[in-house]
Amino acid sequence: MHKITFFGLGNMGLGMASNLVSAGNQVTVYDLLEAPLELMVNKGALAASDSISAIKDAQVVISMLPAGKHVKALYEKLLAHAPTNTLFIDCSTIDALDAKALHKLVRSNGHRFVDAPVSGGVAGASAGTLTFIMGGSKEEVEQAMPILQQMGKHCFHAGGEGAGQIAKICNNMLLAVLMAGTSEALKLAIDNGLDPKVMSEIMKQSSGNNWALQHYNPVPNVMEGVPSSNEYSGGFLVDLMNKDLSLAMSAATANQSVVPMGALARSLYQMHGLRGNGKKDFSSIYEAYLKE
Amino acid sequence: MHKITFFGLGNMGLGMASNLVSAGNQVTVYDLLEAPLELMVNKGALAASDSISAIKDAQVVISMLPAGKHVKALYEKLLAHAPTNTLFIDCSTIDALDAKALHKLVRSNGHRFVDAPVSGGVAGASAGTLTFIMGGSKEEVEQAMPILQQMGKHCFHAGGEGAGQIAKICNNMLLAVLMAGTSEALKLAIDNGLDPKVMSEIMKQSSGNNWALQHYNPVPNVMEGVPSSNEYSGGFLVDLMNKDLSLAMSAATANQSVVPMGALARSLYQMHGLRGNGKKDFSSIYEAYLKE
Amino acid sequence: MHKITFFGLGNMGLGMASNLVSAGNQVTVYDLLEAPLELMVNKGALAASDSISAIKDAQVVISMLPAGKHVKALYEKLLAHAPTNTLFIDCSTIDALDAKALHKLVRSNGHRFVDAPVSGGVAGASAGTLTFIMGGSKEEVEQAMPILQQMGKHCFHAGGEGAGQIAKICNNMLLAVLMAGTSEALKLAIDNGLDPKVMSEIMKQSSGNNWALQHYNPVPNVMEGVPSSNEYSGGFLVDLMNKDLSLAMSAATANQSVVPMGALARSLYQMHGLRGNGKKDFSSIYEAYLKE
Amino acid sequence: MHKITFFGLGNMGLGMASNLVSAGNQVTVYDLLEAPLELMVNKGALAASDSISAIKDAQVVISMLPAGKHVKALYEKLLAHAPTNTLFIDCSTIDALDAKALHKLVRSNGHRFVDAPVSGGVAGASAGTLTFIMGGSKEEVEQAMPILQQMGKHCFHAGGEGAGQIAKICNNMLLAVLMAGTSEALKLAIDNGLDPKVMSEIMKQSSGNNWALQHYNPVPNVMEGVPSSNEYSGGFLVDLMNKDLSLAMSAATANQSVVPMGALARSLYQMHGLRGNGKKDFSSIYEAYLKE
Repeated sequence: MHKITFFGLGNMGLGMASNLVSAGNQVTVYDLLEAPLELMVNKGALAASDSISAIKDAQVVISMLPAGKHVKALYEKLLAHAPTNTLFIDCSTIDALDAKALHKLVRSNGHRFVDAPVSGGVAGASAGTLTFIMGGSKEEVEQAMPILQQMGKHCFHAGGEGAGQIAKICNNMLLAVLMAGTSEALKLAIDNGLDPKVMSEIMKQSSGNNWALQHYNPVPNVMEGVPSSNEYSGGFLVDLMNKDLSLAMSAATANQSVVPMGALARSLYQMHGLRGNGKKDFSSIYEAYLKE
Repeated sequence: MHKITFFGLGNMGLGMASNLVSAGNQVTVYDLLEAPLELMVNKGALAASDSISAIKDAQVVISMLPAGKHVKALYEKLLAHAPTNTLFIDCSTIDALDAKALHKLVRSNGHRFVDAPVSGGVAGASAGTLTFIMGGSKEEVEQAMPILQQMGKHCFHAGGEGAGQIAKICNNMLLAVLMAGTSEALKLAIDNGLDPKVMSEIMKQSSGNNWALQHYNPVPNVMEGVPSSNEYSGGFLVDLMNKDLSLAMSAATANQSVVPMGALARSLYQMHGLRGNGKKDFSSIYEAYLKE
Repeated sequence: MHKITFFGLGNMGLGMASNLVSAGNQVTVYDLLEAPLELMVNKGALAASDSISAIKDAQVVISMLPAGKHVKALYEKLLAHAPTNTLFIDCSTIDALDAKALHKLVRSNGHRFVDAPVSGGVAGASAGTLTFIMGGSKEEVEQAMPILQQMGKHCFHAGGEGAGQIAKICNNMLLAVLMAGTSEALKLAIDNGLDPKVMSEIMKQSSGNNWALQHYNPVPNVMEGVPSSNEYSGGFLVDLMNKDLSLAMSAATANQSVVPMGALARSLYQMHGLRGNGKKDFSSIYEAYLKE
Repeated sequence: MHKITFFGLGNMGLGMASNLVSAGNQVTVYDLLEAPLELMVNKGALAASDSISAIKDAQVVISMLPAGKHVKALYEKLLAHAPTNTLFIDCSTIDALDAKALHKLVRSNGHRFVDAPVSGGVAGASAGTLTFIMGGSKEEVEQAMPILQQMGKHCFHAGGEGAGQIAKICNNMLLAVLMAGTSEALKLAIDNGLDPKVMSEIMKQSSGNNWALQHYNPVPNVMEGVPSSNEYSGGFLVDLMNKDLSLAMSAATANQSVVPMGALARSLYQMHGLRGNGKKDFSSIYEAYLKE
């Protein structure tokens, strides 16, 4: 049992905080909106009247916010008021440079920090089957691990400060490449008269095999129970993929890394988003290859 | 037991024909070079004095040649002389349009045809563990299957005329995308201070998972026994990947298919080949991301 | 004055043939459709009852057809019936390999051939201001030159057999690169608060200067009298740019030329066409960079 | 005549400061290195003993430094000590966001600021033929204009704060696209047997026309007196093009601008730099298309 304060009760955060309550922790929440606060109180959380009082007894502070600037603003308000040696875990997906700056900032205030971005979506947050990718020292990560395991299934230690963010965006950049590449390989096969089911089976057992073919085929009705067979609703939104690809491009620019395939996947997803597909699942990139 | 005539005793062909002999078939071979002929005779094959006499009793004719024009030239010489209803199996990787033309040509001469390009490399040819991807009618494919199974482990029926070629180049185009994408995701992680072994493990268990990460990691010393850990020697040559990508581009142009990721992978592999890497394994594309 | 037979009375062909009549030539036409034939007869051309009788006195045969297969089919019908040493000029935009094959075919029948694809559009055809790019021997090109000058303003001799086609698709591939590149540079400037008119002026006087900025700005209302300021109507259609880019990709595949920028411009134009923009002017690629 | 203090006596800065002296200004310089200081003193400049004393009487402060962080560090030291209402002109090429921040910083200290990145290279700096692209208010730009005209030939007012930087990188991103696109169009022509001189002439008079063809042909020996005909020495270095493309990618990421062509040109130039070509002229990208 830990005393945990949770900030960021969006769709993801609600599921995550609920699982922390279910696991028997004393969870304190604060949010500007009434609705999610009430919802959490009904589940057994404590509601604080402001962010600073929310953390006065905290052992662990978890944040799940839209971008680095939000996390930074929150932390700048909290750090001086947190009990010494509080463990801050940021589960937001933010710029790796921002995450590194947060490590420095939190430590200079006498606390500990782990960047721990998440994958698995709203469904995974609710079911407690998320994947967390952590950046921080061995000690910090070992402390964060049992708490994150209450919200997720897989927890990886990617490396030092900011490594969680880097690992997540590298994975998601590769995912964008896989999904676009798989889409166009399947469309090329279809254009030449092949059945996408047959082609998918062959590639799954060959060197083209990848996560998209195995779990998330982008062509409608090749696979059951995936977004492509449900009008690309639900799943991992194009808008979110675009956010991650933007972070990947930013990381690539920072270090002069060469990312031709990632940059092209980025442009394809951007153009797909511009066409009004931002709220569709990201496997809908397949539609970019079709005649309207 | 079948009476099989085999044309094309290169590195691949020798292994394949040897396995047909070992399986108990009566194998006749013909080649312009003495050395491979002798080698096959020592293994128990019959050597013919010319291509036409090589097929006079054939039930099955198998070809394994560099390009469509070679297959076409051979078939134009043989077709009139083959016993009625001979089964021609072309295992070469050739243009799908050429394969379709061969189907028509062979049938108009009263024979049967299966296009059955292969993957698995010289090692697979020798070990009898190749993968064959077949195009043709159900009947033709059923007749070819037991013979190909003597040389390989997996046999797929991709579809009608030319579908074997199409399926192979679609798979290999996707493979090129996976390999380049995986290389740059790993290099982006390394540039940001992550360990490629750790990053590879995380992605294998995440949505970036693909064949390259599982079986063929392009970063030296992440995985044992793969070309990247052996100075990119052996394996599937950059020159051969470029051949397949050229066929993929040709198929895309023929039908106005949109292949941005494939076309970019194609350009990266071409440039890699221009830099003198044609005889390295194709996972050496990773080196294109490094400072020389 | 020449005796000229003209095949292909589409929008381009009508303008071209009319200018040949105006220049005082004896022009014979044949077409499957009545309307263009009548139109030409009213202008002073002779209408033939079939293609073979159309050429019986021809000194020069000009074709302006959609693709290589049409030209080939026409020539195969005509060549045996044409007066010895007829000058065939094909103004169609076709595959360079087809053009080379036509050179061989025409010469083997005792005639002369120039491939002379055209640029300048319907307006240029009507006004007699087209540009012709010729492939053929010095002698053939010298004979074709004065006739083409009656339909155009600029006539270039690009090189030997098929060189006209190659030069045209190289130019148009570069044009696609310029237009897409100019569009995204201007949009990047606009996204950062700059005025596209000011940005265009600066680049026109700097190293970014190119034909699109000078004559064909893709951003609406930067320049008067261009398609972008007229809802991208008229001009050079996206469908036609896609045809030329397909020919460019085909030429690149044939010789293993590396064309990353051209291939990407190709994909962008294809996707733009798939979105229903085929009949818009090609500068409408700018819209691919905008939110719908 | 103005009292001008000049910081940054690199190859560019030396030429620029010398022209200010020649134009009759009182120029004060300060640098950590002795050699350039002496050189400037010999030309008639005053050498200061430190940066703060260098500006004590300044009406105008000009900086020409490698990156935004250097400019920021210098300005933070100087701003409190500069005479009220000093005109700061930064001619460095830096991140547009940094330039915007500098505008704010300078103004909040009671001074005026113009971002005025430059093109034209060392030769232009020495000859006084540079191009300046300015960002700032109308008043600030009008004040900077006559001073910049003493060092250059063309001065553009691109827009408000940071607009000079944006306009420069948009132009240079387009330039990279033009140069790569022109290189591959010419190589495609050569691969098909055409003479690059003839092809260049045709495209210069056609819709492929652009600055590279007119002034800077990348194919050796097509044009005299350009880097490509002098082993790609001198000119605008690949390393500098890569710096500008990195800034362009950064600007694109900041605003979610879509830049597929620019991003690909960026990757091609990065890879070209990785191959050891950083100190060659940027038209050497043509070599990336050749067999080594």
